[in-house]
Amino acid sequence: MLSEFSLIDRYFARRARTNTRRAALGIGDDCALIAPAAGEMLAVSTDMLVEGRHFLPDVDPRALGHKALAVNLSDLAAMGAAPLGFTLAFALPKPREDWLEAFSGGLFELADRYGCELIGGDTTAGPLNLCITVFGSVREAHALRRDAARPGDDVWVSGTPGDARAGLAVLRGEWPHVQIDRADATHFRRALEYPEPRVALGLALAGIARAALDVSDGLAGDLLHILERSRVNAEIDVDALPLSVALARLPRALQLQCALAGGDDYELCFTAAQAQRGAVEAAAQQAGVRVTRIGTITSAQMTASPASAEAAVAAHDGAHARPKAQAWPAIAWRDASGAPLNLTLQGFDHFHAD
Amino acid sequence: MLSEFSLIDRYFARRARTNTRRAALGIGDDCALIAPAAGEMLAVSTDMLVEGRHFLPDVDPRALGHKALAVNLSDLAAMGAAPLGFTLAFALPKPREDWLEAFSGGLFELADRYGCELIGGDTTAGPLNLCITVFGSVREAHALRRDAARPGDDVWVSGTPGDARAGLAVLRGEWPHVQIDRADATHFRRALEYPEPRVALGLALAGIARAALDVSDGLAGDLLHILERSRVNAEIDVDALPLSVALARLPRALQLQCALAGGDDYELCFTAAQAQRGAVEAAAQQAGVRVTRIGTITSAQMTASPASAEAAVAAHDGAHARPKAQAWPAIAWRDASGAPLNLTLQGFDHFHAD
Repeated sequence: MLSEFSLIDRYFARRARTNTRRAALGIGDDCALIAPAAGEMLAVSTDMLVEGRHFLPDVDPRALGHKALAVNLSDLAAMGAAPLGFTLAFALPKPREDWLEAFSGGLFELADRYGCELIGGDTTAGPLNLCITVFGSVREAHALRRDAARPGDDVWVSGTPGDARAGLAVLRGEWPHVQIDRADATHFRRALEYPEPRVALGLALAGIARAALDVSDGLAGDLLHILERSRVNAEIDVDALPLSVALARLPRALQLQCALAGGDDYELCFTAAQAQRGAVEAAAQQAGVRVTRIGTITSAQMTASPASAEAAVAAHDGAHARPKAQAWPAIAWRDASGAPLNLTLQGFDHFHAD
Repeated sequence: MLSEFSLIDRYFARRARTNTRRAALGIGDDCALIAPAAGEMLAVSTDMLVEGRHFLPDVDPRALGHKALAVNLSDLAAMGAAPLGFTLAFALPKPREDWLEAFSGGLFELADRYGCELIGGDTTAGPLNLCITVFGSVREAHALRRDAARPGDDVWVSGTPGDARAGLAVLRGEWPHVQIDRADATHFRRALEYPEPRVALGLALAGIARAALDVSDGLAGDLLHILERSRVNAEIDVDALPLSVALARLPRALQLQCALAGGDDYELCFTAAQAQRGAVEAAAQQAGVRVTRIGTITSAQMTASPASAEAAVAAHDGAHARPKAQAWPAIAWRDASGAPLNLTLQGFDHFHAD
């Protein structure tokens, strides 16, 4: 049996030490010491991953190491921040060397790729649980905040959202009557297990885009967070949603459920002034990521307190209704012709059954 | 059933928002944005608390809220850093309002007392697990690092270590043949459940003390971390250990086991030059905390690689042995007359049985 100290040393501290650049003091003291560059703020985000909720008990540990850090780097990306370092706290039922070797391998492969150092941590015995806190730096004026969207802004999304949700359905065998060929199933599963944080895109968009977030709980539910904090509404053209070739082969209802209400994509959803269309396209090209315009931010009448985010997805009842007090925050769904669509979507909530 | 969003809002975000001073952006975005003052470094520490390991299943949730933050503030104290803020990630089997009310009450009572803001978090369903990452600020030259002890330094400890371990023994009924009166049992239990982080002492010692850490796993084992990183040894006068009145009423063997190998005290163990004795006493008086000199840092022959920290506690075999290659890191235990003592102590390791 490995002791806590030899475990940390063998799989984590040694790799961290060979690698220290931005931290004045890393693993092995009471605290790590770090500082953002002059004129920059420190961006901080924390995420906890729990077995059975965020990953399945038989998950490939290499994929888990990748994803645990990826979801945190994705939060930095959504802020337009450059990764600096992270802390890792985890509970393990029983330290197994092959498991730790694969887990730390997946973790550091991604960390090294983005120059993000391990600067501290904590390990303990207990049901499998991973808690990562990540640090980045960003100029305060360039931070992509959720409260910065304005009426008239375009709404954009990166990549092809929905594939991760389809991957979960494949793993769970949720769609026994839907034919999915092996290559598509592999594509979906990889989207679920190895999401790529859009760090380069976030950095390229800092100073160009206004509001941004990463899509962890589903595009529809997450967009509402921007609308709520920015005190605006949105119209979204459902036919403009960028779908992967694999997702486009599924029945239309599943496509929309996955692309709009599926979690775990970690694509960026952001708004930018129409005058910035060229700059957004150039930023995306520089980052090597596809971006797609899917709608417009609209003004909201601020007469009432906001409905709950969950209720608001279904609250807008579309076209031919007579003008009335408009719900806020609300998304008006349209098709390519501009005709309203009635969609009932359920956002992802960690205390509800999926 | 509370949803994740209403839970965060009701018990955490509202209290955090009314309180925001140091964070440019707090709860509700992808990241929090914070910055240390000019000329200061950010001190960062993370701790995970797991049911059955760090607290018992029937723990008072108010005590748990206090302790979860206290152990993190203690890491800042051991660095000489001033608290700025913290993130809280937790998994709960089932959100119960009375539990959350008491837990958040204990948490914010302590947070408010030290001006430490909640700046971000994450909640999920799962076996009870708390992960706090805390942020403080410190001048880099004043940070109380573990690698700064020098031969000739005094070794100091704050408070009366050992009471928390006795509290655990009382809760577990470990000592059925030892008579402990009710007031002493209450004192021990309070030491276990409501440890007071030595933040004021750590701040007062910054620039005066050399090396420091907080005693979370037992004085003997934790002191070895200073010895290892500073490449020194130590002589400790066991009769100088400051004991509470309650602990001093226990059999001597239990006193020593609790005071030297008992975890969860969160007192500071630190070294300072002999010329600083007056300054250390003045700092302690200013902070309102008792400090006691318990020994001296000695030089170590650096001929071999260090023995494991666990082995080294027992490796020094005391007096009348002939001179030989000295173990390092090692603690030589003495009594008040300077005579060597043979002590066998087991340090605390989260992957071993206690």
